Amino acid sequence: MVQSTRIVLASRPVGMPEPVNFRTETVELKDPVPGQVLLETLYLSLDPYMRGRMSDAKSYAAPVPVGGVMVGATVGRVLESADPALSAGDIVLGYGGWQTHSVESVSYLRRLDPSVVPVTTALGVLGMPGFTAYAGMRNIGRPRPGETVVVAAATGPVGSMVGQLAKLSGARAVGIAGGPRKVALLTDTFGFDAGIDHRAPDFAEQLAAATPDGIDVYFENVGGAVFDAVLPRLNSFARIPVCGLIAGYNQTELPPGPDRLGLLMGMILKQSLTVRGFIQGEFAPTQTGEFLTEIQPMVADGRITYLEDIVDGLDQAVPAFQGLLTGRNLGKLIVRVAG
Amino acid sequence: MVQSTRIVLASRPVGMPEPVNFRTETVELKDPVPGQVLLETLYLSLDPYMRGRMSDAKSYAAPVPVGGVMVGATVGRVLESADPALSAGDIVLGYGGWQTHSVESVSYLRRLDPSVVPVTTALGVLGMPGFTAYAGMRNIGRPRPGETVVVAAATGPVGSMVGQLAKLSGARAVGIAGGPRKVALLTDTFGFDAGIDHRAPDFAEQLAAATPDGIDVYFENVGGAVFDAVLPRLNSFARIPVCGLIAGYNQTELPPGPDRLGLLMGMILKQSLTVRGFIQGEFAPTQTGEFLTEIQPMVADGRITYLEDIVDGLDQAVPAFQGLLTGRNLGKLIVRVAG
Repeated sequence: MVQSTRIVLASRPVGMPEPVNFRTETVELKDPVPGQVLLETLYLSLDPYMRGRMSDAKSYAAPVPVGGVMVGATVGRVLESADPALSAGDIVLGYGGWQTHSVESVSYLRRLDPSVVPVTTALGVLGMPGFTAYAGMRNIGRPRPGETVVVAAATGPVGSMVGQLAKLSGARAVGIAGGPRKVALLTDTFGFDAGIDHRAPDFAEQLAAATPDGIDVYFENVGGAVFDAVLPRLNSFARIPVCGLIAGYNQTELPPGPDRLGLLMGMILKQSLTVRGFIQGEFAPTQTGEFLTEIQPMVADGRITYLEDIVDGLDQAVPAFQGLLTGRNLGKLIVRVAG
Repeated sequence: MVQSTRIVLASRPVGMPEPVNFRTETVELKDPVPGQVLLETLYLSLDPYMRGRMSDAKSYAAPVPVGGVMVGATVGRVLESADPALSAGDIVLGYGGWQTHSVESVSYLRRLDPSVVPVTTALGVLGMPGFTAYAGMRNIGRPRPGETVVVAAATGPVGSMVGQLAKLSGARAVGIAGGPRKVALLTDTFGFDAGIDHRAPDFAEQLAAATPDGIDVYFENVGGAVFDAVLPRLNSFARIPVCGLIAGYNQTELPPGPDRLGLLMGMILKQSLTVRGFIQGEFAPTQTGEFLTEIQPMVADGRITYLEDIVDGLDQAVPAFQGLLTGRNLGKLIVRVAG
């Protein structure tokens, strides 16, 4: 018998999730049955989509039930295997959630090779966030040489990959981030052509200056004031893959008017814009293989770079997640649970 | 020397265009030079996009200059030809505008054969409006058998074609129109599975009842209250070709709040919606040939039906256009200028 310490959703947050919305429990896990393995969680991924799972508003995925373990991708070590495909000691990518141990079906796991790239990359640059950038750019954004691509949260695991994929396509990449430290990373570390601080009082003017030929692809993962500044810069036939709107995730009511819904529809019409929401899961079944084949070698040899922000201890998950929603993290946010 | 009587834009309308915004002039036309023909306008097409050309707001096409002849597609008879491709008496589709005579370059004209289909169809079901429906459905809407397609202004030349193309694709077609006479035409004449009156006090409930499996394609050509009722009915992966927003064309300021721009973006994200603005001109160069090959035989033998609302006299163009913006016409609105 192994005990698992886990963080469950105690109540649905209104606005920013607070510690009171969560509860730590310890349970005894059952032994794995054939086809399952017992895993020790090494790393837990924290991602903005988790805010949605805490809410019971209509969405693309069922909410976490109150009293249920918070979901999340994890890198774990096999402690005990009841399946010939995996052995004790193997490192796997799974979906164990916010807990120290879990019993999972082998069919949901992917074995990782620590000798190729660090295993944490399976949660970021080579995981769901990196694939989100890849799928959105490949299927919707489709940047062409000489076009201009803009992305916000650009030091994050999605945004930094969007910028690097834009450059690989021969496009101009403009990144938006919060604060001088992140903005400096955009050009220095990730190779963006320009970096802009969305907190600057003249943000809209800076964006205009950095996009002299307008914007052809706006990879939308934040919404809010950034989108407002991007809108008037969009060129005809611009594409807007929409994979997140973190600025509004804690919003509890609609902002005051005027109502700009019709204004947006008018721009979509007049500029022949494509606005396309997507969840990476739409493309994962058919394109994950090509993604790994194409991108992993570039991560391994440094042509694609990434930043990880690793915090220690499962008890830090809630404050770290709060920080994620306010942009306090620097790079892909990961909790080191053990190891 | 031939005289042309023409309607020019005297001033830019604010809100609904009024007679004071237009002026009738008579000018002497120059003789056609080689490559040109002199045309007598038989029929003038009136279309919602013309409201946009009266305004100098940013759009996909340059506005009509103040003092300039109002633009518009026309069917004309060749009076005098200075090009071997056309002869006096030929009937052509051109772009003569709101005037009785014009001199046009042959390269912009298409000869029509009155023995195949009535020549007025070149302005409606087999012209720009019909092609708009065809291009939006073929390239963006892409209805699949069993899906549900919704379109408003559904007795109009775009909407009625959208519904008929939906049925040809094996989809369920739900049409929206204003008033019982138009609504009856939807099912009786155009073969929609259901017709709904957007003026009904329980319009949203009727729409829900008519779309029990939700909406997969909403062909957007009106905006406003219809879009508001459609939004909560959209299925995941729904497609919204946006070709017009006639409800807002006379709007002079943004409506009061709350601001639903973020709400719309959130729905696009959560439902993986595709919202794509388009102008038929994007597809016309490559797909007009296939459109005519495919659709003209079905118009000729009645498999595709259409309605035309023909008013007599160029002096009726302004009041007829006002009626178009308020839904007074029944079917494709055409002015008989001569013949």
